[in-house]
Amino acid sequence: MDHQQLFVQMALHSWNTQIARAEKVFNSYSEAEFFEPVAPGKNRIIYLFGHLATYHDLLKETLGIGKQARPELIPLFLQKPDSNDNAYPSVAELKVYWESVHTELKDLFSGLTAEEWFKRHNAMTDEDFVKDPSRNRLSVVLNRANHVAYHIGQINLLKPANN
Amino acid sequence: MDHQQLFVQMALHSWNTQIARAEKVFNSYSEAEFFEPVAPGKNRIIYLFGHLATYHDLLKETLGIGKQARPELIPLFLQKPDSNDNAYPSVAELKVYWESVHTELKDLFSGLTAEEWFKRHNAMTDEDFVKDPSRNRLSVVLNRANHVAYHIGQINLLKPANN
Repeated sequence: MDHQQLFVQMALHSWNTQIARAEKVFNSYSEAEFFEPVAPGKNRIIYLFGHLATYHDLLKETLGIGKQARPELIPLFLQKPDSNDNAYPSVAELKVYWESVHTELKDLFSGLTAEEWFKRHNAMTDEDFVKDPSRNRLSVVLNRANHVAYHIGQINLLKPANN
Repeated sequence: MDHQQLFVQMALHSWNTQIARAEKVFNSYSEAEFFEPVAPGKNRIIYLFGHLATYHDLLKETLGIGKQARPELIPLFLQKPDSNDNAYPSVAELKVYWESVHTELKDLFSGLTAEEWFKRHNAMTDEDFVKDPSRNRLSVVLNRANHVAYHIGQINLLKPANN
């Protein structure tokens, strides 16, 4: 295996690990628990679920590898804070959305060559990329894996165990 | 810059970003806030602070690049859960510890060549490494960056804003 391929494998492993952990904890909650906040006055599980699904739907565009399926969810889950006043899609509908977003990402990711992973992402210019080639598609995936971990730490707080 | 160096830079950027974020939020809390839990019945800030410092002190040994400075803290911060009954070092003492651990790691990290980063870490055998070369020192750093992000998500809950 050449080095480029090895890094791609490492970064995707980091991403896949976090997505699997997120799915495991979300799946451990009942429908009623989706409407509980992770701490008093903080985001509810349903908001964090929609937040991650929407952000990862958008990730296709950030990486320049696909189109967002549901751009209408951006205001609700990426721009506005969680609120009882907002009408969210049902948990069942969000679960279908989560599944389709992550299945599509898996396919798109496996279709990229190592070389394509090291190309710049769409949120930066060619000029900036020449100055800093570390800001490539793979660095976006590393960043998003950290973002998932950040929220898993919160989502786990609703479990009886302390971790 | 060759690809190995580029990927080392990307992984260290991920680590440095999370450490800087952690330091920023820990520094935003008063001494009294260090003794508040992130959510009712959950870990207090002082525990998470000691937990991350101790885990990163141990990281030197996991990577095989140095000796742990304070192994006596392992039971308190890595094996036992947070408890009022445990006698923790003072916040001031833990802040000195945090600073020295992360300063030393910075020096040790910058002393490793790209090739050394891709060597196996101490938690696995040579045999396993031949089968899976992605389990190298750098993958441990990516994993630890995600672990820091996980706890920042919790530590941030004590702030008035919802994020």
